[in-house]
Amino acid sequence: MTTDLTLEDVHFRRNWHPAAIVGHRCLARGLSDIAAMGGTPISAFLSLATPRGSDKWICSFLGGLIRLARMHRVELAGGDLAQSHSVISADIVVLGLAPTRRALLRSGARPGDGIFVTGALGGAAATLLTLQKRKRIRIDGNDPHFYPSPRVAVGRVLLEKRIATSAIDVSDGLSTDLSHLCEESGVGAKLDASAIPISGTAHKIGNSLDLALHGGEDYELLFTASKRTRVPRIIAGVPITRIGEITRVSQKDRSAPMILMQEGRRRVLRAEGWEHFR
Amino acid sequence: MTTDLTLEDVHFRRNWHPAAIVGHRCLARGLSDIAAMGGTPISAFLSLATPRGSDKWICSFLGGLIRLARMHRVELAGGDLAQSHSVISADIVVLGLAPTRRALLRSGARPGDGIFVTGALGGAAATLLTLQKRKRIRIDGNDPHFYPSPRVAVGRVLLEKRIATSAIDVSDGLSTDLSHLCEESGVGAKLDASAIPISGTAHKIGNSLDLALHGGEDYELLFTASKRTRVPRIIAGVPITRIGEITRVSQKDRSAPMILMQEGRRRVLRAEGWEHFR
Repeated sequence: MTTDLTLEDVHFRRNWHPAAIVGHRCLARGLSDIAAMGGTPISAFLSLATPRGSDKWICSFLGGLIRLARMHRVELAGGDLAQSHSVISADIVVLGLAPTRRALLRSGARPGDGIFVTGALGGAAATLLTLQKRKRIRIDGNDPHFYPSPRVAVGRVLLEKRIATSAIDVSDGLSTDLSHLCEESGVGAKLDASAIPISGTAHKIGNSLDLALHGGEDYELLFTASKRTRVPRIIAGVPITRIGEITRVSQKDRSAPMILMQEGRRRVLRAEGWEHFR
Repeated sequence: MTTDLTLEDVHFRRNWHPAAIVGHRCLARGLSDIAAMGGTPISAFLSLATPRGSDKWICSFLGGLIRLARMHRVELAGGDLAQSHSVISADIVVLGLAPTRRALLRSGARPGDGIFVTGALGGAAATLLTLQKRKRIRIDGNDPHFYPSPRVAVGRVLLEKRIATSAIDVSDGLSTDLSHLCEESGVGAKLDASAIPISGTAHKIGNSLDLALHGGEDYELLFTASKRTRVPRIIAGVPITRIGEITRVSQKDRSAPMILMQEGRRRVLRAEGWEHFR
């Protein structure tokens, strides 16, 4: 079971994001959490607060949300409506199922495991940066900022074929989400900068490695697999890339367990993705 | 499973409601929904959005929420935190269990059934009215506005002893919640005004029948029981009062199925409780 808040002026802006896209992104966040556990999403519950006179906005929002729900055969099973005196807020709850004691967790990574990521990173952050520069943008159905694709089918294969030892979705940014996984598994990580798959959009606007490392909202899956496991290059139609290896945490390194190898040089990688209350 | 939104300046005001009380009321709304189905609440999930610098407020809020959770042996099992640029919003999800196909529904009332209510009505609305008149008020642990008591134990007895044919909680006001129950059961209702238990606080500020009929947030249970069922006068320590009878809907009356008998006169009772988007 997973809950995710979507707030106007924090997670979206009405002049940047059409209502249907806000609906899509709202549900995508919840589905991605279920995907990261290898679960099958079953039903969703929506709590929506909108200012008076938002009927048309609500219809478009629900249209976008329900379209994505149908694609994943998820039922919008209930929720709550309230009138807000200020901004729009939407809380989505998604209920998913996984076989008993088989759900993928953040805590299962072991030293020596490979680190893998689905798709490409940095694309959502690149589009956000473009929006922030007030540049005109054409909304594209493949843009992960507007239409993130929760990797539900990939997650299910990772669980069913016992490929992954741990998993998390890249919602806050690779550096931050990898640090969560390392922390909960009690391990470190070594990433190869040249191996990280960077989205074409991120390449175009420069600073692409930073966007891929720290930009959030790509909703790709980050997972680990044992050395002995053969990890397919494509799962459920999505490319899978090995980007590094889980390492042991020595007493000395406990405070900085993530290392980035870049052009033969070794530097400490800090969690610099989206963090609340920072 | 139930979700309820609590919004600043809609459901509470920071200068009227201490944070711990907001936390209590937030969870109480969810627990009351579970109580109305005769369920046992198991766990709660909280999505909380607060402006920067709300750490102290959050601690008190969680204190109030967790205190009530402990009383009901409910685990706060997860949730989401976000930073809001405007008001506080809190969405509470409560997961409850009931025996398969035994949960109390709104749709089970049949003509001839008695209509019952727990506790007394109008107290929460009376306190709200006092607050709106900007009168000083002493916060009292028994005031249903500040410290509503979700009737979880009563709901469970109604289910286990097969007393109730239908149930709903009085969150929007007796007239509105009874109309929901009538609509979903396809029945009408006749209430006896003199039988409605009115709270002492409502009596003090006058207009007490209106407060009891249309004031919301009392979180008492409204239920129906067959004529053949002996309904105890007290269940789990809470007084139970018979306030009327479920009636047949004739083709003629379909549009106005609720009748209030008052001093020998018969008048149509309209749903005039709290309704969103009105």
